[in-house]
Amino acid sequence: MKEVFNFSAGPSTLPKPVLEAAHKELLNYNNTGMSVMEMSHRSKNYVDIHNEVISLFRELMKIPDDYEVLFTTGGATMQFAMIPMNFANDKKAYYVDAGVWGAGAYRDAKLVLGDKAILAASSKDQNYRVLPEIPEIPKDAAYLHVTSNNTTEGTTMYSFPKLDGVPLIVDMSSNILSVDYDITQFDMVYAGAQKNLGPAGVTIAIVKKDFLNTITATNLPKMLDYRSYAERNSAFNTPPTYPIYMVGLMLKWVKEMGGVKAMEKLAKEKADCLYRVLDNSKLFKATVTDGSRSVNNITFSTGSEELDATFIKEATENNLSSLKGHRLVGGMRASIYNAMEYKGVKALCEFMQAFELKYGGKHV
Amino acid sequence: MKEVFNFSAGPSTLPKPVLEAAHKELLNYNNTGMSVMEMSHRSKNYVDIHNEVISLFRELMKIPDDYEVLFTTGGATMQFAMIPMNFANDKKAYYVDAGVWGAGAYRDAKLVLGDKAILAASSKDQNYRVLPEIPEIPKDAAYLHVTSNNTTEGTTMYSFPKLDGVPLIVDMSSNILSVDYDITQFDMVYAGAQKNLGPAGVTIAIVKKDFLNTITATNLPKMLDYRSYAERNSAFNTPPTYPIYMVGLMLKWVKEMGGVKAMEKLAKEKADCLYRVLDNSKLFKATVTDGSRSVNNITFSTGSEELDATFIKEATENNLSSLKGHRLVGGMRASIYNAMEYKGVKALCEFMQAFELKYGGKHV
Repeated sequence: MKEVFNFSAGPSTLPKPVLEAAHKELLNYNNTGMSVMEMSHRSKNYVDIHNEVISLFRELMKIPDDYEVLFTTGGATMQFAMIPMNFANDKKAYYVDAGVWGAGAYRDAKLVLGDKAILAASSKDQNYRVLPEIPEIPKDAAYLHVTSNNTTEGTTMYSFPKLDGVPLIVDMSSNILSVDYDITQFDMVYAGAQKNLGPAGVTIAIVKKDFLNTITATNLPKMLDYRSYAERNSAFNTPPTYPIYMVGLMLKWVKEMGGVKAMEKLAKEKADCLYRVLDNSKLFKATVTDGSRSVNNITFSTGSEELDATFIKEATENNLSSLKGHRLVGGMRASIYNAMEYKGVKALCEFMQAFELKYGGKHV
Repeated sequence: MKEVFNFSAGPSTLPKPVLEAAHKELLNYNNTGMSVMEMSHRSKNYVDIHNEVISLFRELMKIPDDYEVLFTTGGATMQFAMIPMNFANDKKAYYVDAGVWGAGAYRDAKLVLGDKAILAASSKDQNYRVLPEIPEIPKDAAYLHVTSNNTTEGTTMYSFPKLDGVPLIVDMSSNILSVDYDITQFDMVYAGAQKNLGPAGVTIAIVKKDFLNTITATNLPKMLDYRSYAERNSAFNTPPTYPIYMVGLMLKWVKEMGGVKAMEKLAKEKADCLYRVLDNSKLFKATVTDGSRSVNNITFSTGSEELDATFIKEATENNLSSLKGHRLVGGMRASIYNAMEYKGVKALCEFMQAFELKYGGKHV
């Protein structure tokens, strides 16, 4: 089997041991004679898997007991809808727009809340190359919503504003388990699985119980009400059982690798390799140049659309896959989540250097 | 590996050839060096899978071009929320309550629409052992919502009311592809995958384009707006790629087996075997006794809670799994979806006869 390094922003590469474990027990889980896909979500075998995934999240992310760990669906974008529906409570909700995903969260909040959705800060005018300065948020705000890692643009919030009693909600889809954040500074964290947690199809939501208790809405349909998830251990109806099982395999692997601290160290080493090549290059330019550089999504370009296209084409021919930047941004993007091995990044770094030798002086 | 026959109501048994195909290509799909789980939802390999699943639905269910075939998430219960949010358009929406799932759809419609959600008919007073008579629906209704197969109670609508211009929406979660319905009588059909279509994590929605065009709401968040799905081929954000791939394997298997007509014939044969045992038994009683008997969910009991429990225990010991009735109904339920082989049903029939010989005269 050829070795392909897959730099897709999500769904993204999974660790070989995780896929091998899934492969081994796909036809017969735990001597049940069944695949996990075939098990009732009320069966002991599945419920044990479900609860173990929750325990692993608690252990790896040091999530205290006063937070719920919930499984939802519809990706982070469904959370864009559910958050204002549940947590606005007729107050104003504040959003930071530091990239296309934060903009999406604000877009949906406006649809739900109208004028009560407030744009607190935006770096759109700077093409999202920097994080915007966040002003003081009024004490009576429903919450502040931020994106910890801007997948498309390649910036990361490594620290968060101290808010005076205003709940803080973080979309952590693209750097959960890659940066060792202190969970207790957040009232809610959510993440689509298909970057650092497993395959697409499940979204984790970690919500402080006190914050859940602030929900006053009485007209939320069951699947749009976080309380239905909390009250029924995320099994009000059938949860996406197989994606949840895969997240469990992924979390076991993270634990074996040494946990979040070890993942963070490896993420920095991988990113450093790429940023070093970029900063020393005369051909490639890193899009982000300040301390907000992401360790998970590294964005760059040659400055020439044609040469970018040649780079992406030749990289693909060399088994370096999915390096095309997001359609809204262009250029290149290397998404290097936890599952990407150092050797994959090294191969990319070497390919970039060889490409520069080949094309450096003569822009096609 | 022991042979277990799994009568779970969902997630439920999958055909061996489907699981074997998934197993074979789990580590390396189509010589890409990647698992389907790792592929970008924008990659050619995944988009080809996605579109093939849609084509297979169109072919197997004879879905005309004036219907969209959409992939959503959150199970049928998320549809309970989205349908009134999208299709009520300030009009009254009518619901038939013929079981716990129809009741759930009506519950969520009331939460969304308040007084404009109308209970058209209910057989709750008869413990859902029969289908309710559906009265005439006013011409200015937004839609009528019915459940084609009541998973929990074991009744099926084999024909539908002729409505004078009122759109008809059908929750077909538990008998899609088992009964050869004429799709053109419906304006919308939806089904959670985890019964007849594959593993949990994706919900199919087949919606007439004219009906989609009636949506007037301007404040729906993207993931709650059917138009986002239709406009972006169900990839507004990352769809649940692996569950969709599994649905594709399942549909290919249905096609190889001879399509929906062949599935319907097999379903009748399997159900006949069980109903024959029930109707000839002095120990077991079928819950449903009229022409609305489901071929997918066969509900029965001994009339004694203790004996029912003994039956379920001994059946499990004999590798006949998940025969316990729904917690709201009690007794037993054999869910025999398309993937259940005839030999599994035959084993259950034989076990029931042996059980009757053993316990028939002396109710424990």
